[in-house]
Amino acid sequence: MDRNMGLEGIFAEDDLPRLIRRSGMADWLGDRVRILDRRQLPGRVDYVDCTTAEEVAAAIRDMVIQGAFSIAIAAGYGLALGARNATMAEIEATAAMLRATRPTGLALSRMLDAALAAARTVGTDRAAAIVALTDRAAAALARQGYETGRNACALIPDGATILTHCFPDRSYAYLLLAAKAEGKHYTIVCSETRPYLQGARLTALVATELGFPTHVITDGMGGYLMRENFVSHFITAADRVCLDGTVCNKIGTYQYALACADNDKPYIVLRQSGPDPDSRDESDIHVEMREGREVVEFLGQRTAPLAATGLYPTFDIVPPRLVRRIVTDRGDFAPDAVAAYFDRPTVVLDAVL
Amino acid sequence: MDRNMGLEGIFAEDDLPRLIRRSGMADWLGDRVRILDRRQLPGRVDYVDCTTAEEVAAAIRDMVIQGAFSIAIAAGYGLALGARNATMAEIEATAAMLRATRPTGLALSRMLDAALAAARTVGTDRAAAIVALTDRAAAALARQGYETGRNACALIPDGATILTHCFPDRSYAYLLLAAKAEGKHYTIVCSETRPYLQGARLTALVATELGFPTHVITDGMGGYLMRENFVSHFITAADRVCLDGTVCNKIGTYQYALACADNDKPYIVLRQSGPDPDSRDESDIHVEMREGREVVEFLGQRTAPLAATGLYPTFDIVPPRLVRRIVTDRGDFAPDAVAAYFDRPTVVLDAVL
Repeated sequence: MDRNMGLEGIFAEDDLPRLIRRSGMADWLGDRVRILDRRQLPGRVDYVDCTTAEEVAAAIRDMVIQGAFSIAIAAGYGLALGARNATMAEIEATAAMLRATRPTGLALSRMLDAALAAARTVGTDRAAAIVALTDRAAAALARQGYETGRNACALIPDGATILTHCFPDRSYAYLLLAAKAEGKHYTIVCSETRPYLQGARLTALVATELGFPTHVITDGMGGYLMRENFVSHFITAADRVCLDGTVCNKIGTYQYALACADNDKPYIVLRQSGPDPDSRDESDIHVEMREGREVVEFLGQRTAPLAATGLYPTFDIVPPRLVRRIVTDRGDFAPDAVAAYFDRPTVVLDAVL
Repeated sequence: MDRNMGLEGIFAEDDLPRLIRRSGMADWLGDRVRILDRRQLPGRVDYVDCTTAEEVAAAIRDMVIQGAFSIAIAAGYGLALGARNATMAEIEATAAMLRATRPTGLALSRMLDAALAAARTVGTDRAAAIVALTDRAAAALARQGYETGRNACALIPDGATILTHCFPDRSYAYLLLAAKAEGKHYTIVCSETRPYLQGARLTALVATELGFPTHVITDGMGGYLMRENFVSHFITAADRVCLDGTVCNKIGTYQYALACADNDKPYIVLRQSGPDPDSRDESDIHVEMREGREVVEFLGQRTAPLAATGLYPTFDIVPPRLVRRIVTDRGDFAPDAVAAYFDRPTVVLDAVL
């Protein structure tokens, strides 16, 4: 596999915004996993090299890498590091350790399940089998993102002003690439997404790299901009979509979805690989609580009185009534019809996540 | 006037949380105005001494002081600084300069109008007349806040978990003092309120000073906590209330009000001096836009790519249908009945703001 081709035959690595290149998430360098340190962006381009699965797990926990799919790819390569000269039981223990880093996302679990299955089918070089599987997953991810971005572009007209929350990952980048190719003018409004500012740092980076007019707002401002008819569309990725159309995404998404409903602005969810066949509704979602400390500190400085404690639920649950369309690699769906994803023809072979 | 008595006859200065003491907002020291630097809280207690009206205006613009009423008091004393050895025309020019610092709030304008009127009625020492008027305004403010806090306490039962946004000013502090006096247990959840973090820094400070269990969240988390039935009530101050019950308050308030409506949680507005008789509805409100730079920097550090620009609308407009009760010094009102405020008996004489 030519590692310079992020999306075989369509885009070379250098034609892509940094964050959706192989080198912009996690890449396999033969004896280590190199992860772009997203915490330093946009100020600094820095990498963390991990030589053990434990180091990869720490990088995921510490938010060196974020985004459900990118985390999954990092974990796949991380499992390969732990699979060298290891028994199948040891590899399973390593997978459990990696799986525990972020409990809500679905892609991480799927990646590890597939990687374990790949390891089980070979006699000896289990690490190589896991690397090959993760490579295929990364390539399929790019193709899915490409299809999803094009499908989303068809829904969003020229002249739209699009509010985003958190980093809507590669489908969003491919949406912007599709808009550019079609000569559509979008304005991007990035909700900064406290506490880690993925919106201000990552989403704004992709939009400005591609030359789109880009604004940054705080997480409380999107509703105002919808009332003023400045924002016309709201898009996010989704960490999970249930069969009933419930969307699980970064904390803050629910409030924006409410503002969409109150102002008749479409909330469009980019979920490139469709709903989770094992999640019927929100009762199947466990929302991860992260350390409250992350909320009461900023750049290492304490912002709140010491007697106050931070609370940090990481994900919001958005009921289907607040979602206009769910866009996938197989087209777009009304939320209550998203289960039909599985009846449509597969457009990306080898999809893992 | 005994300057040690924040609220004559009821609380001594030292019995009050720092932020609602005279020394916690702006105080007249004879030849200067001393303003508590709220930007440094809770880490450091620091004061800015202003010897000219221009310095007071700069302190207001630079957020040394915040909160509609506290700003008004600072501006009153600031005008007194500019009134020494000045003609009435010069004093009017100084008032216009102070008025332009924050265009949305109502109290600032009322304070300056009243101060100009007071100056016009005396022949010589106009500065002394303005100081005396501002002193009376500050004392009346405290009494109004006290009444409003007690009225709000009657609406919020023991055991409530109260979400706040921005700093709901002295009425909120008196609400907590009333709850303490009645032995009610409240838990306070402070929405941090980007970009200046008034919630994390000021609202949490008052709650922890008074011994209430206090949590801090980011501005995107309140809706989730209502869905989880963790938060039972939402309270804010208001920079302005219109006669039709429209509420103007810190950006971010609208999204929380939507979340209240979606989860049947009461949104209770503390507006100690009632609606603005001159604001019929939201068409009478001009929402101030502050510099976008304040959104894309944190603690002096740039967070977003240089090619992205910040947007900073400072206030939200909340339609009356999203408000449960508006609490004043004369009792509480349904939003569509708030104009009846003017039919109820005055409980605070000498009210200016």
